[in-house]
Amino acid sequence: MDVVNVASRPIGSVDRLVRMAAQDMVGVDRLIMLRMDSPVPVIPALAEHLIAAGGKRLRPLLTVAAARLCHAAAAAPDASLKLAAAVEFIHTATLLHDDVVDGSTLRRGKIAAHLIWGGASSVLVGDFLFARAFELMVETGSLRALNILAHASSVIAEGEVLQLTRSHDLSLDQATYLQIIQAKTAELFAAAAEAGAVVVGASETKVQALRDYGLNLGLAFQLADDVLDYGSTASDLGKNAGDDFREGKATLPLLLAMARTGSAEAGFWQRTVGDLKQTDADFIRARDLVVGSGALETCLDLAMDYAAKAKAALTGFDNNDWRQSLEALADFAVSRLA
Amino acid sequence: MDVVNVASRPIGSVDRLVRMAAQDMVGVDRLIMLRMDSPVPVIPALAEHLIAAGGKRLRPLLTVAAARLCHAAAAAPDASLKLAAAVEFIHTATLLHDDVVDGSTLRRGKIAAHLIWGGASSVLVGDFLFARAFELMVETGSLRALNILAHASSVIAEGEVLQLTRSHDLSLDQATYLQIIQAKTAELFAAAAEAGAVVVGASETKVQALRDYGLNLGLAFQLADDVLDYGSTASDLGKNAGDDFREGKATLPLLLAMARTGSAEAGFWQRTVGDLKQTDADFIRARDLVVGSGALETCLDLAMDYAAKAKAALTGFDNNDWRQSLEALADFAVSRLA
Repeated sequence: MDVVNVASRPIGSVDRLVRMAAQDMVGVDRLIMLRMDSPVPVIPALAEHLIAAGGKRLRPLLTVAAARLCHAAAAAPDASLKLAAAVEFIHTATLLHDDVVDGSTLRRGKIAAHLIWGGASSVLVGDFLFARAFELMVETGSLRALNILAHASSVIAEGEVLQLTRSHDLSLDQATYLQIIQAKTAELFAAAAEAGAVVVGASETKVQALRDYGLNLGLAFQLADDVLDYGSTASDLGKNAGDDFREGKATLPLLLAMARTGSAEAGFWQRTVGDLKQTDADFIRARDLVVGSGALETCLDLAMDYAAKAKAALTGFDNNDWRQSLEALADFAVSRLA
Repeated sequence: MDVVNVASRPIGSVDRLVRMAAQDMVGVDRLIMLRMDSPVPVIPALAEHLIAAGGKRLRPLLTVAAARLCHAAAAAPDASLKLAAAVEFIHTATLLHDDVVDGSTLRRGKIAAHLIWGGASSVLVGDFLFARAFELMVETGSLRALNILAHASSVIAEGEVLQLTRSHDLSLDQATYLQIIQAKTAELFAAAAEAGAVVVGASETKVQALRDYGLNLGLAFQLADDVLDYGSTASDLGKNAGDDFREGKATLPLLLAMARTGSAEAGFWQRTVGDLKQTDADFIRARDLVVGSGALETCLDLAMDYAAKAKAALTGFDNNDWRQSLEALADFAVSRLA
């Protein structure tokens, strides 16, 4: 990406965490494949289309890493692997429903499931995965972990509805934008890390620290995603760049650009975002206006603040490999744009 | 309904159960209203549209009645009221998603929610209610009740997908039809009653008996519903008569009529159900063929068998008011058609 100055941003990576958690994640993947199975063929076919497409499995990685950071055993306990699989199911269910709701055409670099199997199947398979997530959680025997993820699920749905009802709203303020991304994205990052600590019996201080880490990490990731929608190509991102603009989503890059371009462009924004009347060329112009306004740098600065807060939340832990890999992940949230 | 002979069918009623559970259901309704609330206005508005429309609240009634039958206290324990509210939320979530999936226009005598707030909001508010159901269940502290309802939820979704993928299939056999209605309807009746017994610490024998009661009651109800779609008017039923036919749903009345009318009508069924090419007059002809074939009587006989099995499952309980009201409910499942 060449549209923002990257010199001052740290270079992070998810690779170290992925390598350290590799053995545990084999167990998580086995659970995922086993528990998404069904005698009704469209269910595993549709679920596998999305789940096998991969993505980085960030959220279950957080659960495993949190459990390992709090519980210095040779391997993650079985219950934390089940929780991690449940977290991935909840995430997959929300992706399936979101793509139907938004009419998105690409997900993880593949055609969105609802375009292959229909919106009805996507809705119902999402429901199936959500229910299976709760069956897995029951098996951990931890009512507290269940409560954390049940609550996160209702907050996510609430955030999605809020986004839906405010999505074309040109007067959306930054506080409401942050409220939306906290609910629809950061809450599951927070819950994934928190539940991983809870299920291994970590102290309250550690549980809260990992929740703070996850929440701030999630905010950094979503801000960076919203930047990427104006500064990337589909091949980088695995979904269509410009999707947010075409759906009229009032993300922070757009809100800042609208404020900064003032009355000169008010008519353009009203037509393209407010009234959602767009031509193919409009995204290029919108992108130029967003980039020219410096909105992407502002968003990245904010994302870096959240990444720094995420790292700061870990200061009470031993400075071991797990902590360092989580710190590198926080840097990755903002450096993956470079 | 005048299309089948009702002389031999028992006259049941839900009134006695409703009256006996009235005090408990005030508590359930209070929980429902409290827990469907949200600062995002469309959530309580959409949820209330469906929930306040009422219906008979049969599933939470089953939970309360099962708890009372197993636990001869002056009032139902708080945990059973929370479970009952959770059961209604799960049911409401599936109705919201089903109406989007099926494109239904009427529900409980009112315009379907997705036609007012859009399909996207219906999907997301369904997700919200489903998550809130699990939060309520966590509060009961019963992992076993949680497991029963989580499992029921995945079975329901599986049944809905099976129905979706087989819905225009003229070769559907009776066994698969029964498998579909057991999954999409009877499983939640079974789980609602079973969980009500579990949460008050009933014996295994009683837990299993109440599950059997609920399962057979649910089968009787769904069969009767499928009959009503060919033998009722919208004002009786609260949804459009003929919906199943217009959606090409291969329910038992249709499957039997197709088999019995043979090659003479094969072209008509292929066009209207197989290819879903219908004119407005086709439902009247389909209904006449279904009625003329005696399919409705056959379905009602089967429904009566299930109602009898439901009652038989209760023989181990004291013959008290709760048991008698549940027996009357089983009769009601089949006599409400009269």
